[in-house]
Amino acid sequence: MPVYKAPVAETSFLLNDVLKLDTYADLPGFAEATPDTVAAILEEAAKLTETSWAPTNLVGDKEGCVRNPDGSVTTPAAFKDAYRAYVEGGWLGLSAPEELGGQNLPSTLNTVMQEFASSANLALAMYPGLTQGAIAALMVHGSPEQKATYLPKMVEGVWSGTMNLTEPHCGTDLGMIKTKAVPNGDGSYALSGTKIFISSGEHDLTENIVHLVLARIEGAPAGTKGISLFVVPKFLVGEDGSLGARNGVSCGSLEHKMGIHGNATCVMNYDGATGWLVGEENRGLAAMFVMMNEARLAVGVQGLAVAEVAYQNAVFYAKDRLQGRSLTGPKNPDGPADPIIVHPDVRRTLMTIRAINEAARALILKTALQSDIAHRSPDPAARQKALDFLGLMTPVVKGVFTDLGFDNAVKAQQMFGGHGYVEEWGMSQFVRDARITMIYEGANGIQAMDLVGRKLAKDGGRAVMAFFGEVEAFCKENGGDAALQPIVGPLAEGLGRLQQATMWFMNNAMTKPDNAGAGATDYMHLFGLVAMGHMWAVMAKAALAKEGAPGMAEKLVLARFYMERLMPETAAQLARISAGAETTMALPAEAF
Amino acid sequence: MPVYKAPVAETSFLLNDVLKLDTYADLPGFAEATPDTVAAILEEAAKLTETSWAPTNLVGDKEGCVRNPDGSVTTPAAFKDAYRAYVEGGWLGLSAPEELGGQNLPSTLNTVMQEFASSANLALAMYPGLTQGAIAALMVHGSPEQKATYLPKMVEGVWSGTMNLTEPHCGTDLGMIKTKAVPNGDGSYALSGTKIFISSGEHDLTENIVHLVLARIEGAPAGTKGISLFVVPKFLVGEDGSLGARNGVSCGSLEHKMGIHGNATCVMNYDGATGWLVGEENRGLAAMFVMMNEARLAVGVQGLAVAEVAYQNAVFYAKDRLQGRSLTGPKNPDGPADPIIVHPDVRRTLMTIRAINEAARALILKTALQSDIAHRSPDPAARQKALDFLGLMTPVVKGVFTDLGFDNAVKAQQMFGGHGYVEEWGMSQFVRDARITMIYEGANGIQAMDLVGRKLAKDGGRAVMAFFGEVEAFCKENGGDAALQPIVGPLAEGLGRLQQATMWFMNNAMTKPDNAGAGATDYMHLFGLVAMGHMWAVMAKAALAKEGAPGMAEKLVLARFYMERLMPETAAQLARISAGAETTMALPAEAF
Repeated sequence: MPVYKAPVAETSFLLNDVLKLDTYADLPGFAEATPDTVAAILEEAAKLTETSWAPTNLVGDKEGCVRNPDGSVTTPAAFKDAYRAYVEGGWLGLSAPEELGGQNLPSTLNTVMQEFASSANLALAMYPGLTQGAIAALMVHGSPEQKATYLPKMVEGVWSGTMNLTEPHCGTDLGMIKTKAVPNGDGSYALSGTKIFISSGEHDLTENIVHLVLARIEGAPAGTKGISLFVVPKFLVGEDGSLGARNGVSCGSLEHKMGIHGNATCVMNYDGATGWLVGEENRGLAAMFVMMNEARLAVGVQGLAVAEVAYQNAVFYAKDRLQGRSLTGPKNPDGPADPIIVHPDVRRTLMTIRAINEAARALILKTALQSDIAHRSPDPAARQKALDFLGLMTPVVKGVFTDLGFDNAVKAQQMFGGHGYVEEWGMSQFVRDARITMIYEGANGIQAMDLVGRKLAKDGGRAVMAFFGEVEAFCKENGGDAALQPIVGPLAEGLGRLQQATMWFMNNAMTKPDNAGAGATDYMHLFGLVAMGHMWAVMAKAALAKEGAPGMAEKLVLARFYMERLMPETAAQLARISAGAETTMALPAEAF
Repeated sequence: MPVYKAPVAETSFLLNDVLKLDTYADLPGFAEATPDTVAAILEEAAKLTETSWAPTNLVGDKEGCVRNPDGSVTTPAAFKDAYRAYVEGGWLGLSAPEELGGQNLPSTLNTVMQEFASSANLALAMYPGLTQGAIAALMVHGSPEQKATYLPKMVEGVWSGTMNLTEPHCGTDLGMIKTKAVPNGDGSYALSGTKIFISSGEHDLTENIVHLVLARIEGAPAGTKGISLFVVPKFLVGEDGSLGARNGVSCGSLEHKMGIHGNATCVMNYDGATGWLVGEENRGLAAMFVMMNEARLAVGVQGLAVAEVAYQNAVFYAKDRLQGRSLTGPKNPDGPADPIIVHPDVRRTLMTIRAINEAARALILKTALQSDIAHRSPDPAARQKALDFLGLMTPVVKGVFTDLGFDNAVKAQQMFGGHGYVEEWGMSQFVRDARITMIYEGANGIQAMDLVGRKLAKDGGRAVMAFFGEVEAFCKENGGDAALQPIVGPLAEGLGRLQQATMWFMNNAMTKPDNAGAGATDYMHLFGLVAMGHMWAVMAKAALAKEGAPGMAEKLVLARFYMERLMPETAAQLARISAGAETTMALPAEAF
């Protein structure tokens, strides 16, 4: 069975020494997040995910979900206790407002728990994960009655949430949505249509399921300007909060998927289901985007999470498996062979995954902290600055960390040789599970277009200029430090390439938008490499400040490795971006 | 159901215009391979794989193999007719000697068929594929009696072959093999032990199965110098060729794998099974390497094959799926949206896969042709030169084309969005199937070490120098051609980087072998990019010579695309190689 140990020490280093959580005590909820509280939360999160969740992962993949003849869906048997333990621990409400039953702690801590939980069991983590997205959308756009009706039960975890966007003929292009909403005359609507790929759409973990559904009100304008958001509970809710009649929404079938077998991915049929408008008529996309942005960051976290657990298992195997001898002489002379971790190609693989994972975690937690600032700071300028960073980094966190998360799961699987290809070690599952993160909540090509086509130019480039300024300032401030120089030098070079690429788009994509499209994916990854490089430089500085403490010397080695082995890719990315779209688009469609 | 159309026109272009098969008519068997014969063979190969094989792929994955209580194994129902059609077409003997019932045609044509068959159904193609490897080993090392007993039936395809190397505790490190062979006193041996991951180990497609097994004769020296090769038939064979008693070898269980579900991957138990020594005592590894090298090239072909069929399906979907509008204005104004092939990021993806696939096919067929020359030429110098190329390119073809084949299958799957993640479109299967090619017949890290640690320095670097010389000469000869200049320029630059990396190893890896290990994978891929780039330059030249013929203009666009989008990676690879092993190896094993 796969091993998993939550990265508590890594996370503590990031929260305390890199992000310096204690300097934000003036933000609501942060004063309560004392170092002791944070330590206790990390410990509890580790305990739950290591002992209750992780053992359910492999069996859940094997067992999968079953749709019963009555349309109900049975999740893997082991999921029930694991989910119950999560609810009883109050984890769904960790950062939710106290008036809803939450603890109002920083959502940064919630992000930490998302990582641990997704490492331990991604398919299971998706159930509460979608609930948290639905909570976020209802908090912003729900009416007071809707909030009172749904949120306390969702924050408690006894009801769950879903998001219903995709239809058979449309995923990315939501303007094509056909699901219809007809006013019932009593303020409610009757929804009819088919939604597909609905994660956690039907299951047996909670008493009720709160579906958020995009649909078109009869007579609404065509395209995205005619889409509204509705809340459609599985069971109608009485005024006293009791569960009433079964609503006209049901699971038509389960998808047979490559991975995340423990999550019920449903075709949902809406047959005149009763729903209520959330937010304004025809403004459904904007409302859903609250949930989408939340979800995109969470998916980026999933990419890291699977890479982390895959890495841990690769390390375990690399220390255990005896095969061949070190190129520099036997390291296990009394054994029949050396453990494969002595081989440079194995070591290179492990170092690569780890250098990416630690930087990804740092950037994710930094982004989560900006989300806290954006939502909680009393200072409008601070909120704006944090929102800028959040918007800019959302496609990077989602697109880059899921692409790399999958790559890293594949790399970790490779360490096992043939044993990685059979299901019993769990490495195949990590790869199959990680694959979905590159697709859902906006395929990564869409993330790249969001970054290049929307986020770069937004507000006259304010967000991207602020980011460049921050990295530049760090380089200037620390470039003279001899210990940091081997790290800051390559970072500055990477930043220079990112700035060149940005300039190239400004000069070449305005008049020929295909130039933006053809370079978007490379640009997103270039951006990610520089942003991760910046985090390594910041981590290296924090490690130097704690010189001699356990693990700090490792940080400096990993930072150097990142600059030697990962940052050089930026040169290739810049070259590809600067090649433009001409050759890419030269052939007619018929030539394919 | 997935689509598949064998790339007949591409292959004809390569055989006729690029490799100029007709100039080798002096080689045995080549005179018979007239353009008309080759065209007819390609047409028949296409017909068989498209109509008989491809429809069995998805159902074979779903159905998988079943081990029955008596130890027999049932393959997917649809495989029987497909395999029979292959046998009846005489495909197993396409390039086998006539005295064994073969047609003695160039093995280059056999490689073509391997590609088509592996695209149509990789799991099924592995059954005859392993038979061909076993035939190769027996042809070189088998006694006259062994050849007479086994080869005609194997060439016919009514018996199949396997290779039994791996044991639970050893795969790469074959010196640790424990399977024991005890002389029976009558010239035969009794073999006892357990082999794992045995592809096609037990099945119902053929009347007999001929196992080639590595084992240690009682009292043999420890390590690789004490390994011998044995032939162990499932049913003992009488002097008249009739099948006799069931031998003491059986399938203990089937592995539950990520993919290639239609191939029976067996744990094989040898319980005093009767076997006969193949070749010399304690020289089993050398004998098995005949089969291994054959198999490694075939696995490289599999990488291409899966990438090709995945590409074709991605193209089909990209032309069919309507989603969003072109950045340059609607291309399908009367429809609800444009086909996604209008989007530059989709186009970039398709162009990338295709630019890799066509170059990979060119290099594979060129390598296969060298194999023909090495085996058939009467001229010792020509044979030596061909053998040098073959040895050098074997790890490149295996390692690079399986890594890229998997990447390309993943890229193709991504084009489908969520529809790529569900099993019904077949894209998940391509990814899951392609994954094994990076692992079996020597994991790709081992291929990289074979290239860097053995092939580079062999015979004073004769093979690599010849290759550099060939590419250099091409660049010198054609650099002045204005039409080729945008292709030759970047090729020369890539070659320069490869030469620099080679020099770096010469200067830094002799004294510190870890420097070779830490750079090996990057070097293998750098080598592959330059070798593929060379093939693009050669193809571009051939296309210019046929200017105006169908498809020739596309070749020039693809060659340019390759140089703009793929070749820049060589800069990053060189930088990583030159970083050396110091940082990679800096942490102690306990720090992981």
